[in-house]
Amino acid sequence: MKTNGQNHVGIDQNVIFEQVLTNDGGGYHPKYSVFIAPLSGVYVVSSAALTLANEEFHTAIVHNGNIVARMHGQGENGRSDQSSQTIVIKLTAGDEVAVQTIEVPNTGIAGALYSSFSGFLLWPQ
Amino acid sequence: MKTNGQNHVGIDQNVIFEQVLTNDGGGYHPKYSVFIAPLSGVYVVSSAALTLANEEFHTAIVHNGNIVARMHGQGENGRSDQSSQTIVIKLTAGDEVAVQTIEVPNTGIAGALYSSFSGFLLWPQ
Amino acid sequence: MKTNGQNHVGIDQNVIFEQVLTNDGGGYHPKYSVFIAPLSGVYVVSSAALTLANEEFHTAIVHNGNIVARMHGQGENGRSDQSSQTIVIKLTAGDEVAVQTIEVPNTGIAGALYSSFSGFLLWPQ
Repeated sequence: MKTNGQNHVGIDQNVIFEQVLTNDGGGYHPKYSVFIAPLSGVYVVSSAALTLANEEFHTAIVHNGNIVARMHGQGENGRSDQSSQTIVIKLTAGDEVAVQTIEVPNTGIAGALYSSFSGFLLWPQ
Repeated sequence: MKTNGQNHVGIDQNVIFEQVLTNDGGGYHPKYSVFIAPLSGVYVVSSAALTLANEEFHTAIVHNGNIVARMHGQGENGRSDQSSQTIVIKLTAGDEVAVQTIEVPNTGIAGALYSSFSGFLLWPQ
Repeated sequence: MKTNGQNHVGIDQNVIFEQVLTNDGGGYHPKYSVFIAPLSGVYVVSSAALTLANEEFHTAIVHNGNIVARMHGQGENGRSDQSSQTIVIKLTAGDEVAVQTIEVPNTGIAGALYSSFSGFLLWPQ
């Protein structure tokens, strides 16, 4: 879960999630904000994010450097905008998954538990 | 799933979901709109909500009275706005999880299957 | 995952998802953009969609022709709007689930991995 808002974030940065609700397989590495698959298998990955007021972000679920899903938030007139995606993806042990800012330079992401990154193993393979 | 819209909802009220698609472990108690974990374990919880036109809500996934995730919807110019989050959380048998309105008094939540609350056990623990 | 945007889409059309990340049980039939349950059981189904700029869509997760969840996206002032839902649903082998456009004629859905349809079996029954 994201607790602290981030501002002036560049492109292709990992979004930072400071608070960890569960991390049973130990796959999430908070220091680098990256999930490293402990086992090969089929995983579910979900992410939500909220813009700061009047700001726009594009975020992506990134698998070994390749974008597999995009989120789009665009606020205006003092509004914030929240978006999310949940996907099913096959990972090999050691594969890296992160949520990154893309496309929009100098963006911001709200904290306060409005933004999150979660995943779990469906079955090993 | 939420079928009926609610208007003039105060703060810290459980959002009401009238229609139950599945309730295999019997953990969801529609009368109180609360999920009570039948087993200790790791669960996935998801919620979506849509504003009424021009209205704003903040909702939260609340675990034993503590906010663990927030949703933000803000409509204007006749628009509605939908948002959702999916999280992974460890629950002890008897723990309560609900979706509550927070922060914005006198808010409204759309029904018509635009708003939902779902969860499932990943593995007992 | 949806890679190509669609424009001028009528009502009650299956939204097309061209790129398949995983399809382990072979339940998803890309030719018809429909998921056919290979086994009876409890499934999780999730869908996200992004509007084209200034456009509005309503999409639905449709189970054997019945709407079980709705998504709402509404862009304006050059903005796009993304929304998603994740639900738990009981399916009998052979049941069909698709994401369809509803209610708003001549709508558009963005591609570029902003829109998705995913599902998985929680447990057979």
